[in-house]
Formats: sequence, C-alpha cells, structure tokens
Amino acid sequence: MPRQFTYSLHVPYADIDAMGIVYYANYLVYFEMARASLLREVGLPYLEMEKSGVMLPVVEAHCDYKVSAHYDDELVIHSTCLPFKGPRLRIEYEVRRAGELLATGHTHHVCMSPEGKVLRPTPELRALCDGETGE
Amino acid sequence: MPRQFTYSLHVPYADIDAMGIVYYANYLVYFEMARASLLREVGLPYLEMEKSGVMLPVVEAHCDYKVSAHYDDELVIHSTCLPFKGPRLRIEYEVRRAGELLATGHTHHVCMSPEGKVLRPTPELRALCDGETGE
Amino acid sequence: MPRQFTYSLHVPYADIDAMGIVYYANYLVYFEMARASLLREVGLPYLEMEKSGVMLPVVEAHCDYKVSAHYDDELVIHSTCLPFKGPRLRIEYEVRRAGELLATGHTHHVCMSPEGKVLRPTPELRALCDGETGE
Amino acid sequence: MPRQFTYSLHVPYADIDAMGIVYYANYLVYFEMARASLLREVGLPYLEMEKSGVMLPVVEAHCDYKVSAHYDDELVIHSTCLPFKGPRLRIEYEVRRAGELLATGHTHHVCMSPEGKVLRPTPELRALCDGETGE
Repeated sequence: MPRQFTYSLHVPYADIDAMGIVYYANYLVYFEMARASLLREVGLPYLEMEKSGVMLPVVEAHCDYKVSAHYDDELVIHSTCLPFKGPRLRIEYEVRRAGELLATGHTHHVCMSPEGKVLRPTPELRALCDGETGE
Repeated sequence: MPRQFTYSLHVPYADIDAMGIVYYANYLVYFEMARASLLREVGLPYLEMEKSGVMLPVVEAHCDYKVSAHYDDELVIHSTCLPFKGPRLRIEYEVRRAGELLATGHTHHVCMSPEGKVLRPTPELRALCDGETGE
Repeated sequence: MPRQFTYSLHVPYADIDAMGIVYYANYLVYFEMARASLLREVGLPYLEMEKSGVMLPVVEAHCDYKVSAHYDDELVIHSTCLPFKGPRLRIEYEVRRAGELLATGHTHHVCMSPEGKVLRPTPELRALCDGETGE
Repeated sequence: MPRQFTYSLHVPYADIDAMGIVYYANYLVYFEMARASLLREVGLPYLEMEKSGVMLPVVEAHCDYKVSAHYDDELVIHSTCLPFKGPRLRIEYEVRRAGELLATGHTHHVCMSPEGKVLRPTPELRALCDGETGE
C-alpha cells in the first residue's frame, strides 16, 4: 500500500483571485510544495537529485476543483507516489481543509538528464514508488 | 466546426523556474489570459458576466507538457470552446512557439451564481459553444 | 525596544527566475507571509481584523537586494513593527540565510475601512507598534 | 529630457488579492514587463544582453501605492531611464488607468557578469540613459 505524505500551509493573500478564492493555478504550486516536502522527507531532496544529474520535469498535471479555499485557510495536502508505468512517475494529491476534501489532482514526471534525455528511474525513486524494499 | 481564438504573450522573467523553463503552473495562467481575451473578443467580457450574476469557476484543469518554453519566447495560445455537456463548458488550449506545439490542455467550467448555485448556461455562452442553433 | 518576529520558509521552485535566483517581486510576498505570521502570533490575525472592519493596505513597499537566494534555500524573515507616524504603520524586514543578510525592506500601511476611508490606528495595533502605553 | 516608454496590460484574474485589488507585489512584475518592453523597443532585448554576458539584476525596488487597480483594468506603465549614478541605472515607473495615477515606483540595477562581478555600464545602456554621447 503506497505511503501517504502530508504537507500543510496557510493560504497567503497573494494566492486569492478576483472571486475571493484561491486562484486555480495555485493548486499546482501547492502540489509542488507538497512534492518537494515529500522528497525531502524520504531523503531525496530535489536539489540533490538535480546536482546528481536527474531532473524530474512535469509532463502532465491535472486538478479537479470541488470546494473553494479562502485566505488564511489551513490546507493539508496529502501526496501519494504510485508505481512507475514505464518511465512515468505519478503522484496523486488531495487538498483538504479540516478534513473536507477541496480538490484532487495528479502530476506525471519523468527522470531527465540536464540535456533533456529521458532516463530510467533511479533506484531510489523505484524504491519510493514501487515499494521495492529488496527481499 | 468550433471557432478558434488566438492570444499571444512574451514569457516574462517572473514565469521561469529553477530549471530555466516556464514554471508548469503558469500554463494555467496563460490559459486564463487566453480565455479572458476570447470572452472579450466575442463581446462577453468576464467582468460583465460577473456583474450580471454569472461566474465561470474552473472545476477541472489539465495540461500536457511536451516541449519547454523559455524566457522571452513568444507564445501563441489557441483556444476552442466545445459544446456544453450538461452544465459543463469545456475549453481546449494549444500553446505554440513559432508553430511548434509546446503544450495542450483544457479547462472545464460551470455557470454559477455568486451564492455558489450551479446555473444553466446563458444563451450567449450556448451560442458561443454550441454554435448557431437558430434557424 | 521593538519586538522582532521570525518567519521562515523554503524557497519553492515557482519563485526562481531566469537568472536562477529568487525573482525580486517574491520578496514582497515573503514580507506579506512574515507579516501575516506576526499578526497571528500577537493575536491579531489579519482575517479577524478585516472581519472587524479594519483593513491594512500597503501604501509603500521597498526592498534592497544584497545577496541572491536560490531554490530550496531556507530563508528567515525578521520583522519589526515601528511606532506609528500619524496614520502610518511601518514594518521593517530582514531576509537572512544561515545568518547572512540577503535583503532588507519595509512596508507602510494605513488602517482603512472597507469603503476606503483612512481610520485611526486601532488600540491593539498601537499597543503592538508603539509599545506598552499603560502604566 | 529623458525619453518615456509606454507598456500596457489588462489585469489578469491571477493578480487580484483577497481585498479584490491588484496584489502589491504584482506592480514589481508589471515594472519588469514594462522594462523588458522598453529594452526590446530600443533594440537591446534583455535576452541578447544576457547572451553577451551582461545581466541587469535589481538591487533596489520601490513602489508607492495611491489608488487601487482591479480585475481587467487596462493599466498603462510609463517608464523612464535616468542617467547612471556610478554603476547604478535607475528606471522610474508610473502606473496609470485612463490617465489617473495609481502608483509610482523605481528600480535600480547594475550591470553584472554571470559570475556576479559588477561591470561598467555598456555603451548602449549609457546612450539610452545618459542621452546623446556623440559629438
């Protein structure tokens, strides 16, 4: 069963739009912050990955918006890494406020060299996503 | 055949990320700018719609990233409104640079009252999305 | 002696620009996050102030940039409220990374009604900025 | 007399804050867009400058906010380059809506090598900022 990670934030003033709710593109920013936190938590900080020559660009992003979020709401982002399908890593996100589900989404990533070549997933990412713990 | 609209912009410095490319969430901002321009062009400026009590919140957003964009690139966004499916309006986007396809995506919207009640699509939006139905 | 408040964050990917450093406008966002945290800490959360009819719009903002910040840097923002000068509240900020001073800045605010009328500072803000006035 | 440049934009939905007005940090983004447009107009596109090894980081930014701007407002930014003081280039900005002055501000820049060394202003920038140098 995939491990779930948790990241939380207070909605800043800057993130609200003219409708008085969190601007829709900001959910992708929250996904990224949750992702960075997740990688830091499992000991694979993204900056280290980049320094070792592995980038993780987003190749697909999706969000379903169910309930609006407002200024200063405390949002909790739950992130789950799914098993690789070929070179693609899928991370799923749930955004909640006091337990209520506000939005769901996902991002797809591939491992890529700084020159733009798609790489095989690193063993560390395989362990994180596929749950290969050796046996 | 649905009408296609065109919006263009130069990528500002602010929109680049640590990888030196346009940060992925910004494509949703570009979609919104293209959408606002589209509505202005057909004589339904969003601000007027809101003043008349009809909001168009995003209920779903999606983007597929194919080729990166960089600072100062001139991006052209092509937008197409698809026929309503129930209360849902779908707009599809293509992002191109000198003809090359960089990204595709879509957003789904519903007509909503300021109190959050889903409304039937307005006749003007029906005409825009479903095409001329009179005869 | 004015009390100093502390807020810290990791620089997200979104905040980097084409030069590979934190985009200059984002320092004002960090100032705002530090400000919101400060107000929450002293028991005057901004949302409560707004609900009570007192807004604190920015009337002046300034930043001096000394050393660049990068992705994932842990930034610490120190904020200090200065005594009111007439209706103006001044908050000063220092941005540090591992102690090193990266930037300094300030914002000026006035108390304003939702209708845009400048108000006298509230007693709570006076206590915060001008220090204990009781005896 | 320094030459004035003009850049205009419609305020996008993303740029509004919880107060229903343009978020204060976005004025610095507008300044940057006006600056980029100015440099393009005089034949010194920033990207070309960077490729030739000259960067123009911001070392100081300032904004005075007088009147709020709202969604879809057409803002006109007037930019003026002032004569160099030592290595510092100063650009001043006025933000107007239908002639009304909403905000003023300035940025200071220095010419810098990619390695972070302060450079003497280039002849092209001198000509732009200090006026006619030939004779």
